[in-house]
Amino acid sequence: LSAALGTWVDGVRTDSLPADDRGFQYGDGLFETLIARAGSVRFLEAHLARLKSGCERLGITFNAMQSLRADIATALSLGPPQVALKIIVTRGSAIRRGYAPHGNEAARRVLSSWPSPAGSDAHVDGVDLCLSSHRLAANPALAGIKHLSRIGNVMASAEASKAKCFDALLLDAAGRVISGAMSNVFTVREGRVVTPRVDQCGVAGVMRAVVLRECAALGIGIAEENLTLEEMFAADEAFVTNVRIGVVPVRRVGEHSFGMNILSRRLRTHIETLDA
Amino acid sequence: LSAALGTWVDGVRTDSLPADDRGFQYGDGLFETLIARAGSVRFLEAHLARLKSGCERLGITFNAMQSLRADIATALSLGPPQVALKIIVTRGSAIRRGYAPHGNEAARRVLSSWPSPAGSDAHVDGVDLCLSSHRLAANPALAGIKHLSRIGNVMASAEASKAKCFDALLLDAAGRVISGAMSNVFTVREGRVVTPRVDQCGVAGVMRAVVLRECAALGIGIAEENLTLEEMFAADEAFVTNVRIGVVPVRRVGEHSFGMNILSRRLRTHIETLDA
Repeated sequence: LSAALGTWVDGVRTDSLPADDRGFQYGDGLFETLIARAGSVRFLEAHLARLKSGCERLGITFNAMQSLRADIATALSLGPPQVALKIIVTRGSAIRRGYAPHGNEAARRVLSSWPSPAGSDAHVDGVDLCLSSHRLAANPALAGIKHLSRIGNVMASAEASKAKCFDALLLDAAGRVISGAMSNVFTVREGRVVTPRVDQCGVAGVMRAVVLRECAALGIGIAEENLTLEEMFAADEAFVTNVRIGVVPVRRVGEHSFGMNILSRRLRTHIETLDA
Repeated sequence: LSAALGTWVDGVRTDSLPADDRGFQYGDGLFETLIARAGSVRFLEAHLARLKSGCERLGITFNAMQSLRADIATALSLGPPQVALKIIVTRGSAIRRGYAPHGNEAARRVLSSWPSPAGSDAHVDGVDLCLSSHRLAANPALAGIKHLSRIGNVMASAEASKAKCFDALLLDAAGRVISGAMSNVFTVREGRVVTPRVDQCGVAGVMRAVVLRECAALGIGIAEENLTLEEMFAADEAFVTNVRIGVVPVRRVGEHSFGMNILSRRLRTHIETLDA
């Protein structure tokens, strides 16, 4: 058990936040979770690019990217060398009460540093997923971005904890597989990799993008496609990804077992050794 | 333009909040917006009952209802006599990073007091709604409760602001009418009132419950039913509700105009004069 190692709000080291922040009031903001190893953040540019894109999608004017980079350097300088850094950018303090943004809010950035267990081999043999009872909502305007309104992920993750599973698999309203509550999902069938589209719901994870890129680089066939649960269960293997765990084979989803993890272990090893 | 008049975090007057609060980190909490007139909160028991129910639905152990009542009394004692009070209850500070609750978090309560323009007649002639491009997600586990993950409402309200409309009408994935971004919706056809069910998505507003109760008391036929946009447009009149505005006739939804507001004005006047 552990709390944050350090927190910076708009560059000032403090554990407290203005209570009128719209991130708190309405979930009106975005976040990124970054992993630092040996004092260096993996995939930093991909995270900052996604954050920038998310701000544009939500209409949040965020002009402090250079200051955020400085915050990250400060957090890293305090160590330990292996930490999880969480960036939150919100629309800022509420100028008036009510959902509608006023338009003149000043975006706020919060960086916090958290312990991150090393354990790169912790999940090498695979993890179990439960099937969440929650369904993801189609909302193209919000799909893909990592906004702060995550009560659905919280509830699905609570289901996973209760079932003693690593993560909970989330379907959309039509029953298509979208993602884990905290991971993206891939299947492998006859050597071809498939991951669900995230243009209607779900989050376009940074590690998901790395897998798409690296499969292409390795000459492994990969596509973003609709994926039913039946199609997933017909796959030879399945794996989940996020920047903290990397590529992790799925052993089971509910009662269904996957027999192989050949390609997922190959990708795991390959991506572990990437520089960025 | 105005900020909060006063804020109390777990009973202590302060404008700041621990940055590791799960309400901020994940939208993991609930809120209520209460209206006080002449120093007295309307429908207080209904708000606190909904808050209690929401905590149970989210698995938040909240044992400070009496302290919250004391916070409200403190806020009211500072005036002005007409204010909006916003209660937020979150799961509390994160014990560890990640969506899944640890289980031992200590729930946190935040009460803030905001200016609330008197203007009980401001919308008496009716308001215009735009049709939101966002669709509400079916999620029975979260339907009805007023949780903090409101980015969808923020984006829909921004659409309403841009269209210079009072509120944005939200449909579900199947195209059924559910609610406004900040209001519940009712139609009247041949003297019979219909409001959409909120067991799949949407919020079960306190004023919505008052309208259901008072229609029954007045002998007006009322039912919770599925409602398509076509059925809404076939209605004689329509109105929106929340505790701040009471009952407000809808003049237009996009290009569609409603010609009458007879029953909505009657209900408005009746509910304005209720004691609670």
